[in-house]
Amino acid sequence: MNSAASNELKSPLEKISKEETLRLRDIHIGKNCTVFFKSSGALKIVRGEKQYLFDENNVPFLDCINNVAHVGHCHPHVVDAGHRQMQLLSTNSRYLHDNLVLYAQRLQRYFPPQLSVVYFLNSGSEANDLAMRLAKAKTGNKDVICVQGAYHGHLQSTVSISPYKFNRIKGYKQKKSVHVAPLPCSYRGKYQRSQIKDESVDIGKLYADEVGAIIENLRSNQRGLACFICESLVSCGGQFPLPQNYLKYVYQYVREAGGVCIADEVQTGFGRVGSEFWAFRLQDVVPDIVTIGKPIGNGHPIACVVTTQEIARAFEAQGAEYFNTYGGNPVSVAIANAVLDVIENENLQQHALDVGQYLIEELCKIQRRRPLIGDVRGTGLFVGIDLVKNRVTKEPASDEALYVSRRFKEEHCLVSTEGEWNNVLKLKPPMVFTKANVDTICELLDKFLEELTHPNEV
Amino acid sequence: MNSAASNELKSPLEKISKEETLRLRDIHIGKNCTVFFKSSGALKIVRGEKQYLFDENNVPFLDCINNVAHVGHCHPHVVDAGHRQMQLLSTNSRYLHDNLVLYAQRLQRYFPPQLSVVYFLNSGSEANDLAMRLAKAKTGNKDVICVQGAYHGHLQSTVSISPYKFNRIKGYKQKKSVHVAPLPCSYRGKYQRSQIKDESVDIGKLYADEVGAIIENLRSNQRGLACFICESLVSCGGQFPLPQNYLKYVYQYVREAGGVCIADEVQTGFGRVGSEFWAFRLQDVVPDIVTIGKPIGNGHPIACVVTTQEIARAFEAQGAEYFNTYGGNPVSVAIANAVLDVIENENLQQHALDVGQYLIEELCKIQRRRPLIGDVRGTGLFVGIDLVKNRVTKEPASDEALYVSRRFKEEHCLVSTEGEWNNVLKLKPPMVFTKANVDTICELLDKFLEELTHPNEV
Repeated sequence: MNSAASNELKSPLEKISKEETLRLRDIHIGKNCTVFFKSSGALKIVRGEKQYLFDENNVPFLDCINNVAHVGHCHPHVVDAGHRQMQLLSTNSRYLHDNLVLYAQRLQRYFPPQLSVVYFLNSGSEANDLAMRLAKAKTGNKDVICVQGAYHGHLQSTVSISPYKFNRIKGYKQKKSVHVAPLPCSYRGKYQRSQIKDESVDIGKLYADEVGAIIENLRSNQRGLACFICESLVSCGGQFPLPQNYLKYVYQYVREAGGVCIADEVQTGFGRVGSEFWAFRLQDVVPDIVTIGKPIGNGHPIACVVTTQEIARAFEAQGAEYFNTYGGNPVSVAIANAVLDVIENENLQQHALDVGQYLIEELCKIQRRRPLIGDVRGTGLFVGIDLVKNRVTKEPASDEALYVSRRFKEEHCLVSTEGEWNNVLKLKPPMVFTKANVDTICELLDKFLEELTHPNEV
Repeated sequence: MNSAASNELKSPLEKISKEETLRLRDIHIGKNCTVFFKSSGALKIVRGEKQYLFDENNVPFLDCINNVAHVGHCHPHVVDAGHRQMQLLSTNSRYLHDNLVLYAQRLQRYFPPQLSVVYFLNSGSEANDLAMRLAKAKTGNKDVICVQGAYHGHLQSTVSISPYKFNRIKGYKQKKSVHVAPLPCSYRGKYQRSQIKDESVDIGKLYADEVGAIIENLRSNQRGLACFICESLVSCGGQFPLPQNYLKYVYQYVREAGGVCIADEVQTGFGRVGSEFWAFRLQDVVPDIVTIGKPIGNGHPIACVVTTQEIARAFEAQGAEYFNTYGGNPVSVAIANAVLDVIENENLQQHALDVGQYLIEELCKIQRRRPLIGDVRGTGLFVGIDLVKNRVTKEPASDEALYVSRRFKEEHCLVSTEGEWNNVLKLKPPMVFTKANVDTICELLDKFLEELTHPNEV
């Protein structure tokens, strides 16, 4: 290898060569901060625009996974709003500022009226941590119920309620105050639609009853329930919607036990599911606390906890100030406000509905001829493709999923895998994703599955 | 009151009147998210520049407390760097990017060589949470020693090691795994220089021996030590430097017990103390983990954990990925890099040393004629003025401190109070604070103390 050539800069947007970037990363960045496609060749990305990321050779990659760049990478309206406010003021919320209260008021209009108090933070992890604190303040209890496959953040407290994460930590001891309900998935969980043929059986209620049993068990052990927390669609756990009626019954059981219901909308909010602005609405429930993050600032570090006056008062009654240095600073909130502008002005929720429906339809067509696709699921631009070696046993086709995601990368599309066995292809692109983009990835997917079916002919 | 008049906008930078801002805040923001000067009249701030904040009437307030706006509010070099990067790319660190690794490399040059691995996060709270996780991964132990008066953040995990915070939460039960060492303050703690006249007695060692006793106690109870965490100057707890030799002995005891030493530099880093870039250097020690935040991004949400390869490897060995969605995104890091540019180009560390020395000298002059000032302490632009009713008993003069901070506000200077009794006037201004600013506040302080001494003559 010609090392002089490899150290050449490929783009005016590079300061050092890709080789050097890799070398410094190896020295200074923790190795469990992983890089996509490390083994097949990490990508160096220097620019983003709409649903595209560009590498140092100015090659565009179709971004099918970045739900953070919600309204598209580097949306000029969002960038301008941030820039204008950065020039004027960025300070903490101990001073009055219009941005903070106007955004809180605007955000509240997207929620049922009882969810009227907003806390501002910097990340979804911080939001879920605060949500638990609020629930504990409200109930005086400590016990938390989460679901198998859940991911709620990288903090100690949120890892403790994230089986998707803590099951991968060697020697991790599950907290006594954390209780894990079965994965509420009708394709792959304890109760599967393929096994329960009788359509009158309510699978959502079967899964909810599992939560009920945990609550019953807590009661018989004289333990009080603080809260139940669940992503409104399970994300890292395998990209699946909750079975119908699940939250309706769970919330009933939790409230009967005096607990608080938390909806984690960090990955699912802001119109992504198309038919609703928040994914919990798909279940026809009203949570007591909703946490929002990722898409809220299109990549800028901001998150919120939205709750009721009653819960806010219980938190206040503890007597201590809640202060978050950066939380709700005028720049973060200006950016979040601009994101809402774009969602509204560009009609992105309706767009997610239309493109998402088309995506599901096209994927289902492929599924009919490709036995590797066990399940196509999701809503709006939140879709999972569950690859299986066998449609009856549903044995996860993990190697095949890895192959497909690598081939996508070679064809300049970014698609990654999720779920316990990393066999679920994840699609949650920026909301500006088009039907033409759908055609591109469906055509490629079909081709890659053909390659897997007839490997020798490739 | 003329309500029409009160709803008038005073500034083109306002979108709603101050009255309306207050009204909406009351509805939508949790009441334990407190506002400065609530009872004497909250401030609405619409603009910031250098060490000044401007209210809706365009009245400048001299900012003596905002250590986050480290290089001055809205510094154009920092704003430009953020804006340029926002236009290009803001995505997560699973793709290679020059900003991340170049900043990590640059930051490392400010540390001893063994502190070479950097984790990127969004807040000081997140940083302290991760620091504890790293310590637990390294040692396999859970117990943490912190100090009385400590504040390490707003998360559940960081509140649990923040006596300054948890002592104010009604019914809070201290965790069994958290052990609080006495406030290491030679003015107000268990061992006071005013009581131990023999200068040969090492007060730092006396306080360190208290930590040693906790470790001894852990050992006899078969409990293992994960870490000792301490702000390098105690901030909320009363704005005081650690006694000489304190950390040297503490680190020795902690390491003998197999524990990890964490320096919380969130409030004290980046040259604020003048003579050193990091405040832990004042104690001539090398921590195993350093957490940095607030000043790092001049208000933009970013924080870092800096540690050794050995500790990073122990974290990696747990087998799970560490992923922080916004952590180390190219915009946050571009901003942090620009902050370092300004600190270097404007020679702000030396400036903090010069202005800080002048500040302490001028305050000591006032102390000589004002018995209310019990103690003037600090280093660089991190200064505390401990007001007492009686110099011998050191009874905290809390009401007087509140009076002084309100009077400062009336004269358009922002000074707040800290410490268990809120009797310590806090000065940690943006680093561009000048000697003329020092003259302003010293003149005012003297006047306010005169008012307190002869209240009838005011």
